[in-house]
Amino acid sequence: MSEKANPFPPRGPADEIEEGLAFQPKFDADGLIACVATDARSGEVLMVAHMNAQALQKTIETGEAWYFSRSRRALWRKGESSGHVQRVVELRVDCDQDALWIKVEQQGPGACHTGRRSCFYRAVPLGKIGAVKLVFREEGRAFDPKKVYGDK
Amino acid sequence: MSEKANPFPPRGPADEIEEGLAFQPKFDADGLIACVATDARSGEVLMVAHMNAQALQKTIETGEAWYFSRSRRALWRKGESSGHVQRVVELRVDCDQDALWIKVEQQGPGACHTGRRSCFYRAVPLGKIGAVKLVFREEGRAFDPKKVYGDK
Repeated sequence: MSEKANPFPPRGPADEIEEGLAFQPKFDADGLIACVATDARSGEVLMVAHMNAQALQKTIETGEAWYFSRSRRALWRKGESSGHVQRVVELRVDCDQDALWIKVEQQGPGACHTGRRSCFYRAVPLGKIGAVKLVFREEGRAFDPKKVYGDK
Repeated sequence: MSEKANPFPPRGPADEIEEGLAFQPKFDADGLIACVATDARSGEVLMVAHMNAQALQKTIETGEAWYFSRSRRALWRKGESSGHVQRVVELRVDCDQDALWIKVEQQGPGACHTGRRSCFYRAVPLGKIGAVKLVFREEGRAFDPKKVYGDK
């Protein structure tokens, strides 16, 4: 990423990062920062995705979630294909400023491209040693992905 | 990471990863997977950290959160220094199995090494263009980190 593309200030010392008021997000070697999106009402984790500096800037300016798709290598306005936009109620940053949390009002029936409300629709049983089988926690789908995204 | 150190099965095709019952977590080039920990009662996001295969296996087997510290390059049982253990109520995996979500009962007053309940104690104001100033959302501290971790 060019310097110009990153409008955020350079990182200060640890104490400033943890206790200061300057927003100094840390982007990784690929120019990305992880972002957790939760449902502002239920608290449910909807998805974990990544933002680059441009996506983060657009999220701040517009109050809607923008991400960077690692698979498509492209800036991605959440809901641009599906209409399932995420209105950001609050954006938070963690202690070392290398992770973000957005509380969102999810528009449409769900956040996941598979048609579920949340991407986290399966649980991993605990207390087992060796191979584990996943357990579905969200039965059925909130929407038909073929109708929303087309038959890919 | 050696093959032996990763007890999880190899990744199948996309449909199996998204719709199947086999747990096939995807570790990145550094052998890590991102994990969001939320408070099982309040739904608040407490922290975002990373697990390697061994940390994930220990979390599954013990029902307590283990992570991998990227700064210390070491397996890390959450609470090993502070006593602030995380009892895992539920572990979930996302659609493409490259992110984890644990709902935890946080032992002790807080999850964050700065003494706060959550690592996400500051908000980023929305709707602004240009430099932004963070806003503290969790005033004061839940515990004194110097007393818990010693004066580092």
